[in-house]
Amino acid sequence: MRGIFIFAKESFMAVKKYKKSDDISYALGATVTMELLNRRGTCARCVYVSPKSEVTAVVDKAKSLGIPVVESEKAFNILSPKENCYVIGEFSKFASQAKSDRHHVVLVNPSNSGNLGTIMRDVAAFDCADLIIIRPAVDNFDPKTVRASMGAVFGINVEVFDSFEQYIAKYADRVVMPFMLNGSPFGKTRFDADKKYSLVFGNEATGLPDDYAKYNPVRIEQSDKVDSLNLSVAVSVALYKLYVS
Amino acid sequence: MRGIFIFAKESFMAVKKYKKSDDISYALGATVTMELLNRRGTCARCVYVSPKSEVTAVVDKAKSLGIPVVESEKAFNILSPKENCYVIGEFSKFASQAKSDRHHVVLVNPSNSGNLGTIMRDVAAFDCADLIIIRPAVDNFDPKTVRASMGAVFGINVEVFDSFEQYIAKYADRVVMPFMLNGSPFGKTRFDADKKYSLVFGNEATGLPDDYAKYNPVRIEQSDKVDSLNLSVAVSVALYKLYVS
Repeated sequence: MRGIFIFAKESFMAVKKYKKSDDISYALGATVTMELLNRRGTCARCVYVSPKSEVTAVVDKAKSLGIPVVESEKAFNILSPKENCYVIGEFSKFASQAKSDRHHVVLVNPSNSGNLGTIMRDVAAFDCADLIIIRPAVDNFDPKTVRASMGAVFGINVEVFDSFEQYIAKYADRVVMPFMLNGSPFGKTRFDADKKYSLVFGNEATGLPDDYAKYNPVRIEQSDKVDSLNLSVAVSVALYKLYVS
Repeated sequence: MRGIFIFAKESFMAVKKYKKSDDISYALGATVTMELLNRRGTCARCVYVSPKSEVTAVVDKAKSLGIPVVESEKAFNILSPKENCYVIGEFSKFASQAKSDRHHVVLVNPSNSGNLGTIMRDVAAFDCADLIIIRPAVDNFDPKTVRASMGAVFGINVEVFDSFEQYIAKYADRVVMPFMLNGSPFGKTRFDADKKYSLVFGNEATGLPDDYAKYNPVRIEQSDKVDSLNLSVAVSVALYKLYVS
């Protein structure tokens, strides 16, 4: 089987532990790497394959794109020491832009890598909105986020802003709908088909600052048996309703 | 601070690694242990506190219920070696029953402990349905499930059956609504306020067997950018709509 690989010497690429400031990141696992190759193949730099693996589809795909395949134990020890991971796709970070004629999911100061990835997956699943992230925020290219997104990060538009004001200045003419505990019941909301909506969610622990209340907030109804909804549950419930409306 | 503890010698309780066949399990962490004490205090057997911790609320609560508090490093090494966990609640497993006048969420052969816990949390959040589990299934008292539920396991009704036939024989007179990829659009579903619904979801990887199609299946609309929805996303989207209908 190994004969079909485009081998490259291990020294060809210098694998380093991921840092936010790097201009490259990593797709951990065969499924995520396949999404990288299929959807953002031009950003793929290299595919690492574990000597233990017998993965062929992802190697064939990399070959067809002319992307080097490196058999390396070391890459896995550095990037994914604890996990059952036998393929890693190295990619250049890329910028994408939201579209003004789409709805938006706006995450204000998200702080959990796994949550952000899960939300990217929700955004891909209910594909009617682009994703906006307001800093400070967790790194949207963190390998943990990329992995939790199951590669959705390669198929959606994500735009990052330094403040909500900068975002809303660029994308005016929308209905801003913040999700806050003191909002009106979301279940009664009717979306106007002629309008574009920005569904705005706060930080996992602290929610949105009070001044978002000026935008007519809504609240996803919930029982008093839980303190609050998980952020990705809130996003999927809200986005699904917009998707089918 | 230690003076307020009801100390018990470490030998008082023999801590063992969790096994599914045991009649006891463990709530890992202060939040989850507090839910145990508040909602199923009669099942609590003992609270372990790490020598590193300064937790008092949970200790006060255990004291008020007459539950022994044991300061033990060993318990944490055995039960939670890798995690930031400073309180563990040991409890006797308990049986609960679904109610015939409530809706049900039915999980057929769930296989992921974390997913099951997350779904328990959804069931607590959108509190209109009891949870049914059809075996073979992941252990609903696994400490990983208990933790992922954030203690919701102590506040909801969960009933386990050996087969779907046994379940439906006991709980007749309901609308069985299986979620399958070839179902009709869930977004168009209108719930009849006079009826009780059983929302039925299959295994994370394999879905429901084909013979569930006889019950008029529905499908949560989704784009082709993802292979399938995460099980807990599907449950929360479906259950929220039932909750607010």
